[in-house]
Amino acid sequence: AEKLALRELVYRYARKIDARAFDEIPALFTEDMRLSGPGYEMNGHVELRAGLELIGQYQATLHCVHNHLVTLDGTNAAGETYCVAGHLYEKDGVARKLDMGIHYHDGYQHGDAGWRFSKRHLDLVWQQDLPLQG
Amino acid sequence: AEKLALRELVYRYARKIDARAFDEIPALFTEDMRLSGPGYEMNGHVELRAGLELIGQYQATLHCVHNHLVTLDGTNAAGETYCVAGHLYEKDGVARKLDMGIHYHDGYQHGDAGWRFSKRHLDLVWQQDLPLQG
Amino acid sequence: AEKLALRELVYRYARKIDARAFDEIPALFTEDMRLSGPGYEMNGHVELRAGLELIGQYQATLHCVHNHLVTLDGTNAAGETYCVAGHLYEKDGVARKLDMGIHYHDGYQHGDAGWRFSKRHLDLVWQQDLPLQG
Repeated sequence: AEKLALRELVYRYARKIDARAFDEIPALFTEDMRLSGPGYEMNGHVELRAGLELIGQYQATLHCVHNHLVTLDGTNAAGETYCVAGHLYEKDGVARKLDMGIHYHDGYQHGDAGWRFSKRHLDLVWQQDLPLQG
Repeated sequence: AEKLALRELVYRYARKIDARAFDEIPALFTEDMRLSGPGYEMNGHVELRAGLELIGQYQATLHCVHNHLVTLDGTNAAGETYCVAGHLYEKDGVARKLDMGIHYHDGYQHGDAGWRFSKRHLDLVWQQDLPLQG
Repeated sequence: AEKLALRELVYRYARKIDARAFDEIPALFTEDMRLSGPGYEMNGHVELRAGLELIGQYQATLHCVHNHLVTLDGTNAAGETYCVAGHLYEKDGVARKLDMGIHYHDGYQHGDAGWRFSKRHLDLVWQQDLPLQG
């Protein structure tokens, strides 16, 4: 049951990103959260909310989550998950999709608000940028 | 348990589509079902079965399901899921794959036959059509 | 619970492949295991361990697992799952990704070591080989 709750948390993050519900995303993280990736780091809800704006530059995104593996330890948990994130945009009049093959390393904490992310670190395994029609 | 049963329903639909077991698909839906997407709508098992024929035009398909989120309400449930559906075909002697990034909005009902789809609406988030070798 | 344990087994196999933890993979299989696919077959841990070396030729891989369906039968189980496996490599100075759309047919056995694979057969549904930037 705990593992399924954590899986839903991960899915919910993906769904809110794709729905551009950026205002609802900080609540999925603890107050002292950290989100980091290649060349960036956001600490706390204010930095997180500001950082999410960058995703708004794309016409649409689709974050497909895979292979969620979790280790429970009381009110803490560690997990990892894969994600293929598609980012739609246009360049020189050509519709394109930038795909990122991501390996997330997560920390979770359980409290009054249920399970939340305490940290997410993103490893970019690959990146592919191709036109939609070729 | 209910959520896992619903996830299996979604996987089973994908598997039967890819296995071309079209005759077995209507049984996954209630009699008064509706399947809709951009520019089409099928109501009831007869229309559904006829509509599935279109998938037979492809050499093969692979419907990869992701991010299944469900809300239970007694014998009813609502869900959404992502799917990346690959469609293999040939054009001008070149083998190609048409990928669709789909966001499904589902309704489910529980009855004597277990959980079934009462409706599926398909939002097409993106479509990418590329050769297999490039 | 059994189904979730089997899903974790499948995820763990994928993760160990991508982490190049080849030495830890045979333990996920029974001693008399068989792994087979188009044009190859490995029987037992020694052949399996040797065969895994081939994956080392790629710069990186990402095995995204989808649609895991399982049928339980006591201490045995049968399952199928989809996987999109990305293989990163370079050709003529160009970074490329070879994607394989896979349909696995699995057998599982439960013993002292928990659930393990007794066999995996791989059907290759499609293969796509494209540059990372195009």
